[in-house]
Amino acid sequence: MSKLYEQVADQLTELVNKGVYNHGEKLPSVRRLSRQFDVSTTTVVEAYRLLEDQGVLEVRPQSGHYVAKREPDVSAPRATCPEPNNPVPVTVGDLVLKVMKDNHNRDYVRLGGADTAADLLPVKRLQKCIAKASTDETSLTVYDHPPGCLELRQALAKLSLSAGLHCSPDDIILTLGCQEALTLCLRAVCKVGDVVAIESPTFYGQLQAIEMLGLRVLEIPSDPAEGMSLDALMLALDQMPVRAVLVTPSHNNPTGSCMSTDNRRELVEILEQAQVPLIEDDVYGDLGYNSTRLPAAASFDRSGNVLYCSSLSKTLAPGYRLGWTVAGRYQNEVHKLKALTNLASPSVLALGMAYYLMGNSYDRTLRTQRREYARRVREMRKAILKEFPSGTRVSDPRGGYVLWVELPRRVKTLELYEEARNRGVIYAPGPLFSAGKRYAHCLRLDASEWGPEAQKAVKILGRLFAESLA
Amino acid sequence: MSKLYEQVADQLTELVNKGVYNHGEKLPSVRRLSRQFDVSTTTVVEAYRLLEDQGVLEVRPQSGHYVAKREPDVSAPRATCPEPNNPVPVTVGDLVLKVMKDNHNRDYVRLGGADTAADLLPVKRLQKCIAKASTDETSLTVYDHPPGCLELRQALAKLSLSAGLHCSPDDIILTLGCQEALTLCLRAVCKVGDVVAIESPTFYGQLQAIEMLGLRVLEIPSDPAEGMSLDALMLALDQMPVRAVLVTPSHNNPTGSCMSTDNRRELVEILEQAQVPLIEDDVYGDLGYNSTRLPAAASFDRSGNVLYCSSLSKTLAPGYRLGWTVAGRYQNEVHKLKALTNLASPSVLALGMAYYLMGNSYDRTLRTQRREYARRVREMRKAILKEFPSGTRVSDPRGGYVLWVELPRRVKTLELYEEARNRGVIYAPGPLFSAGKRYAHCLRLDASEWGPEAQKAVKILGRLFAESLA
Repeated sequence: MSKLYEQVADQLTELVNKGVYNHGEKLPSVRRLSRQFDVSTTTVVEAYRLLEDQGVLEVRPQSGHYVAKREPDVSAPRATCPEPNNPVPVTVGDLVLKVMKDNHNRDYVRLGGADTAADLLPVKRLQKCIAKASTDETSLTVYDHPPGCLELRQALAKLSLSAGLHCSPDDIILTLGCQEALTLCLRAVCKVGDVVAIESPTFYGQLQAIEMLGLRVLEIPSDPAEGMSLDALMLALDQMPVRAVLVTPSHNNPTGSCMSTDNRRELVEILEQAQVPLIEDDVYGDLGYNSTRLPAAASFDRSGNVLYCSSLSKTLAPGYRLGWTVAGRYQNEVHKLKALTNLASPSVLALGMAYYLMGNSYDRTLRTQRREYARRVREMRKAILKEFPSGTRVSDPRGGYVLWVELPRRVKTLELYEEARNRGVIYAPGPLFSAGKRYAHCLRLDASEWGPEAQKAVKILGRLFAESLA
Repeated sequence: MSKLYEQVADQLTELVNKGVYNHGEKLPSVRRLSRQFDVSTTTVVEAYRLLEDQGVLEVRPQSGHYVAKREPDVSAPRATCPEPNNPVPVTVGDLVLKVMKDNHNRDYVRLGGADTAADLLPVKRLQKCIAKASTDETSLTVYDHPPGCLELRQALAKLSLSAGLHCSPDDIILTLGCQEALTLCLRAVCKVGDVVAIESPTFYGQLQAIEMLGLRVLEIPSDPAEGMSLDALMLALDQMPVRAVLVTPSHNNPTGSCMSTDNRRELVEILEQAQVPLIEDDVYGDLGYNSTRLPAAASFDRSGNVLYCSSLSKTLAPGYRLGWTVAGRYQNEVHKLKALTNLASPSVLALGMAYYLMGNSYDRTLRTQRREYARRVREMRKAILKEFPSGTRVSDPRGGYVLWVELPRRVKTLELYEEARNRGVIYAPGPLFSAGKRYAHCLRLDASEWGPEAQKAVKILGRLFAESLA
């Protein structure tokens, strides 16, 4: 049986190993630690002495006890493969999380996400706005309450005019990104087991929201340029108990498809007649390369049947998680669900964003982004067509910053994912974008950070896919 | 059929009436509005002229068009009752939202929430920390990824030591307040229809999370001083298919009950043996009046069976929505659910809070809060005993800042709610704290902002309750 001070020393060592205390960090005072561990100060002093002897900590005169700095081990090989490589059985859900995680790891060239280009965000201006908002005391001292920060809702109501939406600030509910908006709207209109019709392929975040809520997915054939086939949708409505339809009319992720104004109007009419609510995901609406924004489907809504969802994550601040919904006649239900799930979003970021939007520089920011994304997408597209095996087809989007690639059918992008990662490149395999695990020979690539590194990565992928055909 | 410019003018008037444009605010330029409305500039000029004639807007030379300022109507009576008073059928869920909303309205003396006292929060220091964090670019430009900001998780791992928890930063998942942590943990361990055992009475937020997820509630008798009866719990476990137990061992809201250390240990052992996960809500853990913090139930966990949830909303910044969970063996599942629900919480606030916690002033802040809350609760308690009808019983909490009041049985607090509101006072009626609508003669009062205004409100309530007995 070890002595008490040895036990304390062991626990402290464990805390250091776990990363609770960093190397070089000051440890608590003897008195404080004795309170925390509920032992005498003598025991702590002895424990600290032992740890000093063991080289775990060092004493700095007049200052206190510090975790010893670890000498870098120059002989150790640098990790080239940070995680074990054994194939593990994964569901698509787990795979999505894996791709998301890999796509955060700076050891790789990360083409697997749909992330805004950091160099195109008005960072300095937004930071100033947040600093200003943080001086507002109530945004700190008070729980915000749905629908959330009025100033931001006013700014968003103005912004929505360019999408043809004439809504009042009262019609808007702020959410934690568009993903939460979609989840809340799905919950407002569906119950467990209900069928939701979606485009195919479509953003895995939509699929996962549907699956997580215990709903069932019906994939409607969709054209990579024109979006969801309304004929196929009508057929489905006739034959299936579809409870809701979830569509991204503008620049669908992953294909970039963009529904025509006429089709948007017709979609709204069909669903109004069928009394099936339409959930519209408009996160890419502001990122069409053409300066004329198509009207949102919600702009044709006359009966409150459309639940419009969007966010500022794609054009201004992914990290701030500022989304919203205009939920038509489901407004009250969404309001309630938001309150029950997490009360409200942090209002300081909402207020800061409102200050930014009042400043009238958003239009200029958008112009730059549209031009740049159009260029980056075009160049990545050219590179893909050059480097990938013959027979490869690539989407030709009119907005957003992702590309959808169809390889020859024998190339299995899910099976090749690990090997691509070994070679340093992350992409999003096609089956992520389908509940039925379709699109085995497809992948999505993120063009937002196009540059020499991404160019090399496209070359690496091209070689990998060619090898798999050999 | 009205002319096009009249239609535009009508739409603008509507936008002003809806509050999209405030009185005194500048309207878009003619060119901009012509783009937004897809009409010619001539039409906009005519519409603006019409609106000027109608007094809706005014022209300021060299500057542009502004929404006309509305003259205050001094003869109108001031609203004393801002909402219609007709009784409407409500479920408890709707009533909670109503109380939450009323409790945000500054026209009332608001004793209906469980809000931190703004004067006891380290506002200036936190604001500086957020301003510093907002200069970190990646917190803006990049989606954070669960488990969230490492710096805050390190700070929380240190903080948790005082609750007897020895966890690593990797064990912590950041959430949008404790409410989201509870929801995610419930979803990780339960499926629709499962039974969750809780204290009775307990915080309506817990009840609503359970109901919203389609779970069923089993109320376990609980002592207003000692908390959940373990005998009653064991009986329930024998007789019912309980899937999870949700407990607030430290200073339960609303009763302030505090479970003894021995009972905490036993609770963990009972549930480990029964293989029923324990979800621990510890939001008030740091607010015991006694400076020695009782160990969290999770500190006795040896098998990963306890899912610990807490937040910084009660002691530092309600508005920032910074919660977290240490979810034991359900860690992976919670991680996944967080990612799928809303990706991650905004990292700029997490980072700012990490800076604050690194600064070592939290202990001092807590000391002040504990002393002050003890005093405010004591004084409100005295006032209640003096002003309320004889036979009234009031909880005597050892932490937190709410009081649980039991009136004579004939007083129905739900029925009297509207009348209390008419007299300017908001409280939380007892039935909110029970799925079975028990506690019809009880109410919860918030002592955090105790002062002359609250004192008057207690007097008003005392008179109202006495009248209802007459």
